[in-house]
Amino acid sequence: MGGNEGGSSLMRQEIEQQPEALRATIDALLPRRAEVAALAAETSTVLFIARGTSDNAAVYGSYLIQAHAGRLTALAAPSIATTYRARVDLRGVLAVALSQSGRTEEIVETLEWAASCGARTLAITNGGPSSPLAEAAKVALCTEAGEERAVPATKTFTTQLAALAVLGLALGAPLDAGELRAVPDAIFELLAGPVEVEPIVAALSTVSGVVVSGRGMAYAAALELAIKLKEACYLSAMGLSYADLLHGPIAVVDEKTPAIVVAADSGPTLAGTVDLARRVTGAGAQAFGIGGGGSLAAVCTAALAGPPLPEWLAPIGLIVPGQLVTEKLARRLGIDPDNPRGLSKVTQTD
Amino acid sequence: MGGNEGGSSLMRQEIEQQPEALRATIDALLPRRAEVAALAAETSTVLFIARGTSDNAAVYGSYLIQAHAGRLTALAAPSIATTYRARVDLRGVLAVALSQSGRTEEIVETLEWAASCGARTLAITNGGPSSPLAEAAKVALCTEAGEERAVPATKTFTTQLAALAVLGLALGAPLDAGELRAVPDAIFELLAGPVEVEPIVAALSTVSGVVVSGRGMAYAAALELAIKLKEACYLSAMGLSYADLLHGPIAVVDEKTPAIVVAADSGPTLAGTVDLARRVTGAGAQAFGIGGGGSLAAVCTAALAGPPLPEWLAPIGLIVPGQLVTEKLARRLGIDPDNPRGLSKVTQTD
Repeated sequence: MGGNEGGSSLMRQEIEQQPEALRATIDALLPRRAEVAALAAETSTVLFIARGTSDNAAVYGSYLIQAHAGRLTALAAPSIATTYRARVDLRGVLAVALSQSGRTEEIVETLEWAASCGARTLAITNGGPSSPLAEAAKVALCTEAGEERAVPATKTFTTQLAALAVLGLALGAPLDAGELRAVPDAIFELLAGPVEVEPIVAALSTVSGVVVSGRGMAYAAALELAIKLKEACYLSAMGLSYADLLHGPIAVVDEKTPAIVVAADSGPTLAGTVDLARRVTGAGAQAFGIGGGGSLAAVCTAALAGPPLPEWLAPIGLIVPGQLVTEKLARRLGIDPDNPRGLSKVTQTD
Repeated sequence: MGGNEGGSSLMRQEIEQQPEALRATIDALLPRRAEVAALAAETSTVLFIARGTSDNAAVYGSYLIQAHAGRLTALAAPSIATTYRARVDLRGVLAVALSQSGRTEEIVETLEWAASCGARTLAITNGGPSSPLAEAAKVALCTEAGEERAVPATKTFTTQLAALAVLGLALGAPLDAGELRAVPDAIFELLAGPVEVEPIVAALSTVSGVVVSGRGMAYAAALELAIKLKEACYLSAMGLSYADLLHGPIAVVDEKTPAIVVAADSGPTLAGTVDLARRVTGAGAQAFGIGGGGSLAAVCTAALAGPPLPEWLAPIGLIVPGQLVTEKLARRLGIDPDNPRGLSKVTQTD
């Protein structure tokens, strides 16, 4: 069970499989845009149904579709269906359920509930077309990540993001599918080069709490890094949006509680994120940057570059340095990143 | 600036003003149900626009309206309006903006954006009818909390919840307005009796991280307690829904990181919350209960009763013991609860 900094974990291997997994997923799903568009016809709202890491993917989808495809999005509270057993008017709604395994009963049940309330239904899953979730949906977008054996999700998360990018395109976002096709190579290049995680791993190995923040699309990557640090490194990691951090709990950062700040290399949220990092260091705390180009790195205590991707696709790449930090930090702390305590691969809420 | 455990903070005074503030708010707003119902005619979805503490109130509104009024709800990402400047189709949407001051520019701007995208607009604010937010909305529900001088919101939060309960009734939730009228007395009784916060304050004074969790309606009170502990006690407090905690980061609770678990005394989410508390103590961590009647207290390390309220109104009362814990813990830690670092009363994101 103990850590072994020298060995190669399954998690590390699966991080490195991401370019291949993404390429296979994008090749499989891009041709299906017309089918998704037909399913979404006469809907005006997208309701995401997900939990945990898949919910962080849904946050990406939510920003992408609102910012670029002109539709309102909502994140479902599955307990409305499974515990309150409420009837909600979901006519005109496209319900999109995400589950890596495709076997989380609560998510399957909530998608079936959405259909019974009048929604059109789409599944995004790595569980294959015969998984219960795919079977329950009118259309299933199956990611091609292959089997994931480490408990912390890596390649199943980034391929979910790719599937959501395809969904955004299918819903009419005026973005370039060629940029999506270029993502696997960009992540391959990042992983091939040296990623100097050591300064950040060393700093995080002595803290008990950390804030992870980002704005807009990049917020999804911040939330996902927070969950990784909680589940694989047992850190008290707080995923907070840029605005929510400014709106109150900035008090929580101090010399013992650093912030990790995540941003795309360009786009409308970068300037505010740079200001946030400056405010964190101004409060006497350490700020670690991921992405954000030279302007974020310049104001941070230490920083890791993300792959050079346009803002709408940046979260797919921005989580990768965070995955590398998580895997290395877990081993530094004596935790087996493949099997953290208290977790199993298929989660059931009830 | 230092703490003074013996004195009386403004925060403590304002906690005790809540019965009166709630009574005035409920008296003012219940008669306006027909006006709100008329505004909401021909809408099917409610979009909440809020930040920070007001966003926690919106979580309550979101569960209440979906569980009992049959409408889909969404929480807005203001950056879609203010940073991405996107056009989103909001026809058929009732946009509900919450801001205690009514002067947070980002919230006012996002409500105006919603109107320009086709939404009907409602404001909930303690800033009065001439505040910018009230002026920007078609209908304004002004809470009657009076001036709030301590930086951590208390009475402005609970009166927001009362306004949202009125909104739920106006949208057709088949619930008893008489139960809402009984809330101020129930909170008065709670505050009049001894609330034995000492064991929980003592335990929290030695930890750096804490998880705060709840399910359904009660999740809003859990999120609000988490933000209070972050902003006034500088704790690494992680607000996590029941399901999200089970779905992964339960690993984060351990002997150094306890959980606070919040539940109504009855209702469909209680049994699961009791199970969660049992799982926390089973993992070797301390679990502190708020509410949940005898069944939650029985499985917790220590517990505080909430006022006896029906589940749909329970969050208004459940935050009160949490406010008392926060105020006492801040002073124990040498922090002035009225003026924590890094915060000002009116927040501006940009």
